[in-house]
Amino acid sequence: MPDLVGNMLVAQSGGPTAVINASIAGVIQEAGRHPELIEELYGGLNGILGILNEDLIDIQEEKSSVIEGLKHTPAAALGTCRYKIDFKRKTERAAQEMERLFQVFQAHNIRYFFYAGGNDSQDTAHKIHEQASKRGYPLRVIGVPKTIDNDLPHTDHCPGYGSVIKYNATTVMEIAADVRSMATDDGSCCIVEVMGRGAGWIAAGTVLAKRSPNDAPHIILLPEVPFAEEAFLKRVQEVIALHKYCIVVVGEGLKNAGGEEMAADKSRLDAFGHPVLSGAAERVAEIVSGWLKTKTRTVKLGYAQRAAAHCASETDVEEATACGEAAVRAAVEGKSGFMVKIVRLQNNPYRWTTDLQPLQDIANVEHLIPRDWISEDGFMPNDKFIEYARPLIEGGLQLPMDGGLPKFVAFQKTPVEKKLPPRQ
Amino acid sequence: MPDLVGNMLVAQSGGPTAVINASIAGVIQEAGRHPELIEELYGGLNGILGILNEDLIDIQEEKSSVIEGLKHTPAAALGTCRYKIDFKRKTERAAQEMERLFQVFQAHNIRYFFYAGGNDSQDTAHKIHEQASKRGYPLRVIGVPKTIDNDLPHTDHCPGYGSVIKYNATTVMEIAADVRSMATDDGSCCIVEVMGRGAGWIAAGTVLAKRSPNDAPHIILLPEVPFAEEAFLKRVQEVIALHKYCIVVVGEGLKNAGGEEMAADKSRLDAFGHPVLSGAAERVAEIVSGWLKTKTRTVKLGYAQRAAAHCASETDVEEATACGEAAVRAAVEGKSGFMVKIVRLQNNPYRWTTDLQPLQDIANVEHLIPRDWISEDGFMPNDKFIEYARPLIEGGLQLPMDGGLPKFVAFQKTPVEKKLPPRQ
Repeated sequence: MPDLVGNMLVAQSGGPTAVINASIAGVIQEAGRHPELIEELYGGLNGILGILNEDLIDIQEEKSSVIEGLKHTPAAALGTCRYKIDFKRKTERAAQEMERLFQVFQAHNIRYFFYAGGNDSQDTAHKIHEQASKRGYPLRVIGVPKTIDNDLPHTDHCPGYGSVIKYNATTVMEIAADVRSMATDDGSCCIVEVMGRGAGWIAAGTVLAKRSPNDAPHIILLPEVPFAEEAFLKRVQEVIALHKYCIVVVGEGLKNAGGEEMAADKSRLDAFGHPVLSGAAERVAEIVSGWLKTKTRTVKLGYAQRAAAHCASETDVEEATACGEAAVRAAVEGKSGFMVKIVRLQNNPYRWTTDLQPLQDIANVEHLIPRDWISEDGFMPNDKFIEYARPLIEGGLQLPMDGGLPKFVAFQKTPVEKKLPPRQ
Repeated sequence: MPDLVGNMLVAQSGGPTAVINASIAGVIQEAGRHPELIEELYGGLNGILGILNEDLIDIQEEKSSVIEGLKHTPAAALGTCRYKIDFKRKTERAAQEMERLFQVFQAHNIRYFFYAGGNDSQDTAHKIHEQASKRGYPLRVIGVPKTIDNDLPHTDHCPGYGSVIKYNATTVMEIAADVRSMATDDGSCCIVEVMGRGAGWIAAGTVLAKRSPNDAPHIILLPEVPFAEEAFLKRVQEVIALHKYCIVVVGEGLKNAGGEEMAADKSRLDAFGHPVLSGAAERVAEIVSGWLKTKTRTVKLGYAQRAAAHCASETDVEEATACGEAAVRAAVEGKSGFMVKIVRLQNNPYRWTTDLQPLQDIANVEHLIPRDWISEDGFMPNDKFIEYARPLIEGGLQLPMDGGLPKFVAFQKTPVEKKLPPRQ
């Protein structure tokens, strides 16, 4: 493998997380350790969308304290997008976009491309890798895994996941203390809606709030298990009879017995044509209050959960950073067309490392919770899940504070001079 | 004033907060410093409701580490209630209940009664104080202020308020980072619903997330200012034109021009006959997406915000503790019929002390944000508010952790032997 000398481009895509910037910090810091191969460090703004517009920034103009500060700054410091080069439905346009992308790469001598994101983003990275081979354009493409949903295959778990479940489990503990202290003989039921789309990993993670069998959450409704209304209402009644209150966690993508998303708003589609999900908690609350006449309240954490750097997992931040570093190491060693994955070496004490998986194995495969990690009645993840999830929330960050609130960093975003005519 | 020797009873009432337990810790620890006057330390479970049922616990059976741990444990460790002795609408029943209450006091030689709560609870404390005088039953009654809503009069602010706005402002910063990094030319609007009922103090507090004029929140909809739909939509458009995204914070009790709560569900009333509020964010989102066709998302923090001990304000915890201590000091000095209040001595550096206010001045008066603390257009609190709110969120807690999640304490609740026949 001949040495490939040129410039690096890193970008972020898809929904942000509390730690995706840590991966970007890892990429940047590791790239800086290979000046003999990687000459200029560029960031692409708003993922593929910005790269198509030749919106690049010069990362060497950023302060090193800002790069380090990315490790505690939530969301996507370079901006992100949900834009997909859609070869299936818009073949001609996709071909034009791919052509433009390689014009941008060529114009800026990009030889190293790192893309942090989830399923759709790894798919994009894979297509770029394939195109580079076809075109004979020397380019090393490595995907960096990112998703709170934890639904990427082959990696033990995804950076971003540990932090979201640490925050959500903390929140469930606190909400439970509140609802429990208000509980009277009339009973009450609080329903907490969490993200995760069709995967129940995030909902399941709140089981970590249970330190004893009586603790909340009392029921977790996973999208993997079709909603069984009658059994659910019976369980709510049993819990309220025992404890006077019941905390239910519901994954936004909960499905009914017919496989339909209970809260899908089919009138609103996102950029990938998926229906926007909202209101699973409201839907379940209607069912509880309608049938049981129980006082119900809902909490919808929404974006708060995936941006909660103030409650991030230190383990998650370390892994996210390491995934960024590993991507660069793989590329400088000559690899291309891979996604970095996390490999669990052991529990108790938890040990992990990173490895590589071909991008073609990743794209558009959704990894769900195995059925045998869920209780027979379907309302609670079991010990196999708990053993899996527990190490991922260990450790917290000490955020720098200013006036009682966190101090996050932001790129100053010095533009790289454009060399191409504007995109048509 | 002759020395009054006897037992103490402390109870909590109304919606819990992140720091109401700190006030209880203050009461208990201070009471322990006056063994010559205060002999037994009892806790009433679930406020007045439990006291009527003679459900008392022996606090001297609790570990001192648990008492200290209350200072970082959210919600109401003694349990709480929304029960009111309703002299207005249920006069006969109220008289029976008051009789029963004094039977319980007499049976357990209660001579010191401390009640931590908001408006309705201070009203209850006031009635008990009046009854004690009427009956010639020597009793010292002191109210301890508590409410996230910050709507108690005469006190500079209420314990619980600083923590809820610290958490909400942190959350708004994090959500804003997320939405900003996703923002494209199409624009997007995220609407965050916060508590506070008819008072906008909690919504206003999120202004602290603004470190520069461009920062979120961009619009704060306060219940004090009638919702002006046209001006609001125009403002959203302007913000999106400037920043590509807009963060709106809405107080749950937002009212329309006709003075009606926009999200009131009149089919559901709470124990005090107030309509249950829910869905202000959803209502505003419908308006934005309906008129501007902008992508909207909502976040409803619900109970999470008032229980968020993991993001509590150290200042708030100190003040809450001090209010509990001050209540006991006032009582042992012979005072009764007062609520402890916080008095601000100066800003920069912030200094405060506690004082007393007659309970009759407190009950059922709702303290709202002064109009001249709000911008002319009504969409943002101004510098007067910021100067007021800023010191209240200073400092954070170091929660003890176990497995990556907070360790909260709980009373073991050793019952005091009942001496009366069951309540009829």
